[in-house]
Amino acid sequence: MKILLTNDDGIGAPGLYALYQEMVKHGDVTVVAPDSEKSAVGHAITLSDPLRVTDFMKNEKFFGYAVNGTPADCVKLAYWALNIKPDIIISGINLGANTGVNILYSGTVSAATEGIFLKLPAIAISLTTFQSPDFSVAAKFAARLAKTVVKNGLPEGTLLNVNVPAVKEEEIKGVQITKQGRALYQEKFDKRIDPHNKVYYWLTGTKVELEMDDDVDDRAVLNNKISITPVHFDLTNHKFLKELNSWEIEL
Amino acid sequence: MKILLTNDDGIGAPGLYALYQEMVKHGDVTVVAPDSEKSAVGHAITLSDPLRVTDFMKNEKFFGYAVNGTPADCVKLAYWALNIKPDIIISGINLGANTGVNILYSGTVSAATEGIFLKLPAIAISLTTFQSPDFSVAAKFAARLAKTVVKNGLPEGTLLNVNVPAVKEEEIKGVQITKQGRALYQEKFDKRIDPHNKVYYWLTGTKVELEMDDDVDDRAVLNNKISITPVHFDLTNHKFLKELNSWEIEL
Repeated sequence: MKILLTNDDGIGAPGLYALYQEMVKHGDVTVVAPDSEKSAVGHAITLSDPLRVTDFMKNEKFFGYAVNGTPADCVKLAYWALNIKPDIIISGINLGANTGVNILYSGTVSAATEGIFLKLPAIAISLTTFQSPDFSVAAKFAARLAKTVVKNGLPEGTLLNVNVPAVKEEEIKGVQITKQGRALYQEKFDKRIDPHNKVYYWLTGTKVELEMDDDVDDRAVLNNKISITPVHFDLTNHKFLKELNSWEIEL
Repeated sequence: MKILLTNDDGIGAPGLYALYQEMVKHGDVTVVAPDSEKSAVGHAITLSDPLRVTDFMKNEKFFGYAVNGTPADCVKLAYWALNIKPDIIISGINLGANTGVNILYSGTVSAATEGIFLKLPAIAISLTTFQSPDFSVAAKFAARLAKTVVKNGLPEGTLLNVNVPAVKEEEIKGVQITKQGRALYQEKFDKRIDPHNKVYYWLTGTKVELEMDDDVDDRAVLNNKISITPVHFDLTNHKFLKELNSWEIEL
């Protein structure tokens, strides 16, 4: 199994290293990842700047290719410029959940989305904590799931978005196939004054749960289950399309 | 009608100004836009840096608020920090088409997507050319469509993505409600050597049409029609979800 690994926390992130250490037991691994943190970059790509690739060393050995771009750039560049043609792309292990609307902001998921465009199976995997993470459960699960995905294949245009609860292995209550939640953020901007007496703003937000269905990504994680959401990007609202045709829209 | 305008080409872009000049005839307009070009930023938001807002002048008069962030930042900040509560958000007029998979990379569309999260109707509008653009047809159409949208409303979670062909007004053959196309890019990286003898890469790509259906966004534009696609972000592949439940996924 030829495996391409990437992430959005940057090539030096512990979550990527944990994933790497597990995946090398199962196949031929190449790492192509951003040279610095690129969280919440959404599906950004770099058009107006040149991209550079540098060898990234870990414990004095070659670990992977660092790119001065976004997660989506990394996958494109790996495939088209570095000629890496993997059987599967795995993006992660992200520090922090990628559930609900966060999927849209997520660099981790965007890298997996590039897999869709390349018609390659792809998994995005996140550990739902920001504190003292232990990536081992998520890494082992990623390896098992990757094998299943390569064996079964995924429908065209679909990736798997995995969120692993940040609890001990024995506390995990199973795997649940889920829907993307629709929780929204009650957002706020902290208005502050800088040392030069100028105003600046800092985004904060609190998630507001909208649904209590058990088959939603956030809920599964709260119930200590590993959440797997099949994600696709068929963005047309087909139902409303019919209604829209009945609108009188003047040229 | 209270209107919030933004874009991804930056607050100084001619497409935004053309839209502004038209919209002020129809309502109370506020402009909150990136202080520089933010194309292809996808749904990026700024979490690790402070955001600043500065007054942007045009012809020695206040034109709008410039933000050192992404289009999505602009909408969030306008709503939550500047307390702008519009009846509609219009993002554009973008220089260049936002059709097919480009919707995912588009900062223009991402600003309209923030409207969804705020439960506000939103329109993303693009002119399908990069050369000597005349935004007047698109601006007038945006104004008419905005009125219809405010009157009729949009279903929750849905925005309208509009692409206007870059032809003379009399050559436009009408309005077509369309699906998002699935054309893919045959991508390439130009490998170059910089003056310091180091390698760099530059992304290029050619769109490969996959479908010839007339009801697809790209096709409508090629047929000189204004394309309107109802876009939503229900990213769950519900059909495959059932099948995935039958997979044996070991914990």
